[in-house]
Parts: sequence; C-alpha cells; structure tokens
Amino acid sequence: MTLNRDVVSAGQRAREEDLVQRVLRSFDTCEDTRLGEIMRSLVTHLHAVVREVRLTEAEWNKAIEFLTAVGHITDGRRQEFILLSDVLGASTQTITVNDEAHGAATEATVLGPFFTEGSPRIDHGGDISNGAEGQPCWVEGTVRDTDGRPVPGARIEVWEADDDGFYDVQYGDGRTAARAHLFTGDDGGYRFWALTPTPYPIPHDGPVGQLLQAAGRSPVRAPHLHFMVTAPGARRLVTHIFVSGDEHLGADSVFGVKESLVKDFVRRPAGTPAPDGRLLERDWARVRFDIVLAREEAL
Amino acid sequence: MTLNRDVVSAGQRAREEDLVQRVLRSFDTCEDTRLGEIMRSLVTHLHAVVREVRLTEAEWNKAIEFLTAVGHITDGRRQEFILLSDVLGASTQTITVNDEAHGAATEATVLGPFFTEGSPRIDHGGDISNGAEGQPCWVEGTVRDTDGRPVPGARIEVWEADDDGFYDVQYGDGRTAARAHLFTGDDGGYRFWALTPTPYPIPHDGPVGQLLQAAGRSPVRAPHLHFMVTAPGARRLVTHIFVSGDEHLGADSVFGVKESLVKDFVRRPAGTPAPDGRLLERDWARVRFDIVLAREEAL
Repeated sequence: MTLNRDVVSAGQRAREEDLVQRVLRSFDTCEDTRLGEIMRSLVTHLHAVVREVRLTEAEWNKAIEFLTAVGHITDGRRQEFILLSDVLGASTQTITVNDEAHGAATEATVLGPFFTEGSPRIDHGGDISNGAEGQPCWVEGTVRDTDGRPVPGARIEVWEADDDGFYDVQYGDGRTAARAHLFTGDDGGYRFWALTPTPYPIPHDGPVGQLLQAAGRSPVRAPHLHFMVTAPGARRLVTHIFVSGDEHLGADSVFGVKESLVKDFVRRPAGTPAPDGRLLERDWARVRFDIVLAREEAL
Repeated sequence: MTLNRDVVSAGQRAREEDLVQRVLRSFDTCEDTRLGEIMRSLVTHLHAVVREVRLTEAEWNKAIEFLTAVGHITDGRRQEFILLSDVLGASTQTITVNDEAHGAATEATVLGPFFTEGSPRIDHGGDISNGAEGQPCWVEGTVRDTDGRPVPGARIEVWEADDDGFYDVQYGDGRTAARAHLFTGDDGGYRFWALTPTPYPIPHDGPVGQLLQAAGRSPVRAPHLHFMVTAPGARRLVTHIFVSGDEHLGADSVFGVKESLVKDFVRRPAGTPAPDGRLLERDWARVRFDIVLAREEAL
C-alpha cells in the first residue's frame, strides 16, 4: 500500500479529481441553494479524506459497519450520532461557529444527549436533586442582557449527572432527578440547590466507546452542570459550568470546556450555615454563575 | 447569517483553529497508527465543512436527524449507509483509489447494496433468471490474467434487477432470481443467459431518496449487470457492464459508469438462432465481456 499512498500519478490524480467534479456537478440542479452549498462542501471534503488516506475497501466496509452500529444503538433514549459528533469535536465546532457574533454574552457549549423536555419546576431555593445522590451545591447568579440590564422571568433549565455519573434518563425506571427548571426574579436573580458535579464517562458501551478505546482516548467528561436559558427577545443559551481545578478540564472527551465557563465551587464543611440559613449535616459547596444573554437580533 | 459567513475575524478563526488542533491532539495517544491517520484526516475535513459553510445549529440538528433515519431504515435487507456513500460518490472514489495499481486489469465499480452470499450455481449456457422477467440476454467472454493467460476455474457471480427494476431481495418472499454463479472452463471461457439490463431507481423511499429529491437529482441507475470475479492468486474484481447508447450513462445516480465498462448489447429479433442453438419466441440480445484479473500481489 505504501507504494500507492505516497506517489499518486498525474493520471490517477486526474481520474480521482474528475470523479469529484462529476459528483459536485450532480448538485447543479439543487434549487435549495443552501443545501447545494452544504452538499458541495461535504462532497469535496469527504472525497479528500478517501483520497488523502488512500482508504482501502476493507476500511470503507468497517466505516459502513461502524455507522450501521451507531444507527442501531440509537433510540429514543440514546443518541449515539450526537455522541459521535461530540467526540469528534463537531458539536463544539458548530457551537463555536455560531457563537461568533455574541462576544459579550456568556459562551455556549454542547447540549449533550441527556436534555429532556418536561422537567419539574422549582421555586427559588428549591432542590433539583429529587433523590439523586451527591454533595449538595448552592448555585446562584443573575441573568442580564448585554447592556447589563436584569432579565426577569428568564427560564433556566438545569440538569446534571448524579454522584455515580448517571443522568436520570439512564436509570431506566422513568424517574426524574437532578433536573428542573426555574425562572429568574424581578432582579434577574436565581438560586437553587443542585449537586456538586463529578467526572463521569460518556456512554462507552457502544460503537463510539469502542472508537475511543481503539484511539486510546478517555471517555471521561470534565465535571459540569448543564444550563439552558431562554427569555423573550434573547438568543437561547445552551452551556455548562465547569469545576475550577478539576484534573479533567484539559481532556474533556467532547471538547466542551471553555475558560470563561470554569467556576470556583467553594467547598464548605458540614455545619456551616448555608445561604438559605440551613445547617447541613454534610459538606456542601457553593458557586456563582452570572449569565449574559445575547439579543435574538444578533443572529 | 451573511454577516458572519463572509467575514470571519482573526480572533474567531483562531478559536476555531484551536479547537481543531485540540481534537487532533486527542488522537496522539492512538497506538493504531493507521486509525490515527484516518481519524486525523476525518476530523480535519469534518471541521472544515462546519467552518466553511458556517453550519447553523438547526442544520446540525437536521444532519443528526438524517443520519438517525438512515440508521433506522438500515437492516439485514436494506443498507441505507451504502446507498448514502454511493450517491455521494464516496463508494466509487474508494474503488478508484484502490484500482490505481491495476491499470491493465478490468476496471472495478461499486458493489451496490444487493449482493448476497449463497447464489445458485449454474452450468455454462445456464440461465440466471429463475423466473425474473425481462428480455433474454446471452452473455459470454473469457477471464484472463494481465499476461493474457486464461484463468480456468474462476468463480463468476452475476446479479441484476428484473424488468421492473427490482432485485430478488426486494421481492420480500425469499425467492432467489436473476442471481447465480458459474466457473470458467479450461480455456477461461464462460457463457450464460441473463436479462438485458434496464434502468431502475435506487431505493428512494427513505432518507437518501429524500436527499436526492431535495437536491433535484434522479435516483435512476444506468442499466447494468453486476459481476464479482474471484480466482486463486487474483485480486477480487467487483464490477458491472453497462449498456452502450443508454440515455442514463451520463447521469448514473451512484457515479459507477466507466467508459471501459460500457458494452454493446446487440439486439436480435425473435426467431434468430441463439448462440446455443435455441430459437427464442421473443427478441433477445447478446453481449461479450472479456475480463482481465489483476494479480493479488499487485496490492
């Protein structure tokens, strides 16, 4: 194979390039100009991969088998294609590309595969855990617009894994836990109890996990708490906060870490009064996350 | 969006490039050097697509939904990922890349999704149709090596669609038809009855069909008869022969047509004696296909 891979004759290059051009021309009839643009870029780069690596037919077969396995493990509760996009950094790159116009706003990061609609509503100071195990963590902050004005009534969805690294949708018993939503007050403020995030592996018992293992990559995600914040007139923000000082920040399996999203989770010993006056019998933590929403027009 | 798409600031370019480099570095731990090479090329080009077209998050969602649909329609009888690779020209490009070292040998083309193991064996002069409808077609030729020596005992698998454009695996009743194998004789010769190929659409009732429709592309394949030829010491040849003069040769939906594979299918009126002496009551055709197999060492 080295024979072919390193020296491709001019005639061979011409045959390969001619095929690329024929495929590109097949999209000349595409009336949806955006679809045509995307497909032409995709075709160009897909063929570039095949040509650059001199893909063998056996490798092509393995790629088809891999995608088939990704498709077959994907169902209403598990989205292996999102996971694949995540571990290749494509999800984060898409967010990065779209985050461009929102410099002053809080940075976005990956949605991940575990968001679900229909979370329970909690009041200020409420607890999202609902039985999920972990160290209690007080989360508070404000939601403002890019001019610094408080945004009252913003909807904040939060969700996270428990101390064992599982989201409620992975329990398999239909329970809702470590997942809730609340609304900011008149001053844009919010506060609630959650769990101090801990590292966990993305689901790695499927084809994406096999790929990571074959590549010598860890499936572990840097500890984080998910936020999705929406308000009328504002661009939807999907993001996380990460735990400052954590050893996994530099090797997040989905490349979701952004410096501005790393926050101090201040640890407090048992018995220290909590911000809401409670006296907890175990160690707890607190973190502040002030959020800035971009205007929808910024799109 | 035009605002962002045309002018990407240096700072933004740096953020995007930094992410690409982080993802590439994540494969530094890959001990399988070939996998690392493929993954780095894939990551580079996948991110290039996202960045070039400034992919929106809604478009990313549609891509995930599309791949999920491709995965879910794929089963033991239907392979939508192969179909997708075919209509993007990736299958043909893989074959083109690997065909490079075999200049003197018969050109290869796509396998397609309809090959199955376990076809019935026929003798020379036998009929592959087994009840499949269509115009009878006498197919004959020789199998030789690149030095011109006959290859006796070469196994020739042939399969094709019937007059309605369906392969037997699409009948849904488990029948085997228009599919068989035979072996070359001492002189490398072979001959059998098949059906004159007719144009047919690739399965287009699934997500790949929707993509073709959105792009204004026809799902029709140029008429062809599939061959897979194997012999000890020879490189396996997967190819088709196409019908010279057919109107679809220039717009084959999977880009499988190669000039050297276009053959004259000579039409004969009913009553003209066939090569095996038979007198057919309907029009028939005949075609010659002389095959040259590359040596396995050529790889």
